[in-house]
Amino acid sequence: MAVRAGVVVTGSEVLAGRVSDRNGPWVARQLLQMGVDVAHLTVCGDRPADLTAQIQFLADQDVDLIITTGGLGPTADDLTVETVAALYGRELHLDVELERRITAIVERWRSRLGSVADSEPLSAGVRKQAMVPAGAQSISPTGTAPGVAMADDSGTLPAVLILPGPPSELQAMWPDAIESACVAAVLERRESVVEATIRAYGLSEADLAATLRTAEKSITGFGELAITTCLSRGELEMVTRYEESAAAAYSEVLTLIDKHHGAQLFSTDGSTIDDIVATRAGGRRIATAESCTGGMIAARLTDRAGSSAYVVGGVVSYANEVKIGSLDVPAALIDELGAVSEPVAARMAEGALNRVGADVAVSTSGVAGPGGGTESKPVGTVCFGIAVAGRPTVTRTLRLPGDRASVRALSVTVAMHMLADALGGA
Amino acid sequence: MAVRAGVVVTGSEVLAGRVSDRNGPWVARQLLQMGVDVAHLTVCGDRPADLTAQIQFLADQDVDLIITTGGLGPTADDLTVETVAALYGRELHLDVELERRITAIVERWRSRLGSVADSEPLSAGVRKQAMVPAGAQSISPTGTAPGVAMADDSGTLPAVLILPGPPSELQAMWPDAIESACVAAVLERRESVVEATIRAYGLSEADLAATLRTAEKSITGFGELAITTCLSRGELEMVTRYEESAAAAYSEVLTLIDKHHGAQLFSTDGSTIDDIVATRAGGRRIATAESCTGGMIAARLTDRAGSSAYVVGGVVSYANEVKIGSLDVPAALIDELGAVSEPVAARMAEGALNRVGADVAVSTSGVAGPGGGTESKPVGTVCFGIAVAGRPTVTRTLRLPGDRASVRALSVTVAMHMLADALGGA
Repeated sequence: MAVRAGVVVTGSEVLAGRVSDRNGPWVARQLLQMGVDVAHLTVCGDRPADLTAQIQFLADQDVDLIITTGGLGPTADDLTVETVAALYGRELHLDVELERRITAIVERWRSRLGSVADSEPLSAGVRKQAMVPAGAQSISPTGTAPGVAMADDSGTLPAVLILPGPPSELQAMWPDAIESACVAAVLERRESVVEATIRAYGLSEADLAATLRTAEKSITGFGELAITTCLSRGELEMVTRYEESAAAAYSEVLTLIDKHHGAQLFSTDGSTIDDIVATRAGGRRIATAESCTGGMIAARLTDRAGSSAYVVGGVVSYANEVKIGSLDVPAALIDELGAVSEPVAARMAEGALNRVGADVAVSTSGVAGPGGGTESKPVGTVCFGIAVAGRPTVTRTLRLPGDRASVRALSVTVAMHMLADALGGA
Repeated sequence: MAVRAGVVVTGSEVLAGRVSDRNGPWVARQLLQMGVDVAHLTVCGDRPADLTAQIQFLADQDVDLIITTGGLGPTADDLTVETVAALYGRELHLDVELERRITAIVERWRSRLGSVADSEPLSAGVRKQAMVPAGAQSISPTGTAPGVAMADDSGTLPAVLILPGPPSELQAMWPDAIESACVAAVLERRESVVEATIRAYGLSEADLAATLRTAEKSITGFGELAITTCLSRGELEMVTRYEESAAAAYSEVLTLIDKHHGAQLFSTDGSTIDDIVATRAGGRRIATAESCTGGMIAARLTDRAGSSAYVVGGVVSYANEVKIGSLDVPAALIDELGAVSEPVAARMAEGALNRVGADVAVSTSGVAGPGGGTESKPVGTVCFGIAVAGRPTVTRTLRLPGDRASVRALSVTVAMHMLADALGGA
């Protein structure tokens, strides 16, 4: 039997959509990579009744492990430990040693920030964070909030692991947390599952769906494959989870997809376009010349640890003067054709190549909107250029759908694929 | 009584943490802004039993409205409509007119992508998307997936609104969706709630918590305020929701916070640091010179519609040659002090100011990690510079916590605040 988990993310700021949830996805990835099936993820605000309801819901769904994130801070809206303890029928007691350690951490932070708050209510906050449910195991804090792991001795409720909300704290505490006795006991019951990912660019979800329908009819064991597809930022991703015994069926599906959509498939081993650009770059050096993407391509390239080996840098030429002054685009060319034109994109890429001293340069110039669109160049029109030393510069123009954020995000995807192509063709 | 809603996000890719959920937060924002209380948000994969369980859970929590996103595509893992229809006891019937419209949309996309898929399984996908539950109202598709709105005539289940997963489709369909008869009937029962946001920079959550504990003891009506605090990327945000009758209590809390933390408070009207930079820029022009942030500051500044009025552009000087060649940093200075030093950050900012032709320029040079740290400049060490025409250049050095992504994100926050200060002090 698969081990099933449920994840509860707490925090009104997440529920209200003011802050995007970075913990749920991270915890889910860890669990799936360990072979745990994530059945439900729920988000609740700071009302104890809602949190109790969600945990009870997950227990009713027969999950083996519940992981909560958030609600361990010093403020009055942080109620996770006491709410879960109440549901599990545990008293809270003060862990004096923990209180001492948290006090030391808080004092260090306060002195750094030059805090002037009253110390009495501050101690009340620390005391609150040092309360541990009876019989539970405390997970050492990396910030100020300790975690809690506990099992229900009666066996009617799942094991629960309570972790703090700040992603860096949670992630730093994770190794200790999964080694806590009651979590480790659940994890021992796992079975092995394979997860395989393929990615395509320029393929519609409808076409992939059609091919999967064909596969369903013709391939034995297709039903053993848990396939999910997702279109994100112009790339179509298909993830399949299966037990080892269904490997032959997956291989046949892959062959069929490759037959129908081979030209659009760019990854069958889980690698991303970022991985491919990094690998293909080899010793070559990449530069950027960005207008409508305003630095997003450079930011994406440098997201990656070690990118200094192949990213030189670039120019964000948002204003035309910068296209002219820093990338040597002739002013007359902009006057004649407009900044959003393939010849300007070409000169931008060539300017970056020469000025920054790179082997490959990519450029963007487009109308991200909401303003600035014209009849001939509506919002979403983006021109791209790729300059490679010693080769003719390549340009293309696309009309990308959606709002400003969408046009910019899709432009980055296009640029990454053009870069990968340029690096691959050498 | 407040109108309560629950949001269900479907999609194994979201549950698995491979794709971040953009719909839940967006829908929650819309609902809260309309005065609807969002009680729960749940994420489920593509298993009908899990979706049924989540919707039943929300119904058990007495929400008045359930909104689902995703699972309306043509693939076999898209099961929302049939799963919800089964729970609500409705038969599905084919809407022939809808089928015709979806076919036209799919054909247009296929011809653009040069699709070669078999047309029979493609039609099956379209037919699946054109199935509507008996008695439900169909919401016109903007992509290929129509939405569905329906009420439970027996009154035992909440009204449900079923929307597609692609964020641009969902957002485009939203105005029609909330005007559908059964959703509008729920929204009529709303009451008015005020939501107020303040933001601080350089203030610890522990200190704010201490002040709120003081407020709790001393301010009448404090209990009427639903306060949530959240630390995100180095900024502390406090959001308070209250009915009009509690306005005086909120005002007193604000006065107390201002007394204790006035120097750290930078916004009491909901404006973000991005808003403040944009407003303060006035006619002045901003440039960037980025090393460790690799384009993220420029990308952040240009995220904003209309930013071309004050963002000129900048240089991503990831490699030292670019710092020297495009920003006029003396090579000897880098040799002597290293690229991560305040004098280099100062010269980078001045170089951007002069080269790009701006009034204010901000620079970053740091060790984002995971590699590159030394004893004197460990990972997280970041130097910042602000150059303003006609003024001495300002620099500072910080040691930022966390991993590469955290150091880069926090650096952007610091740079935005330094920009705001520089623009405000003129």
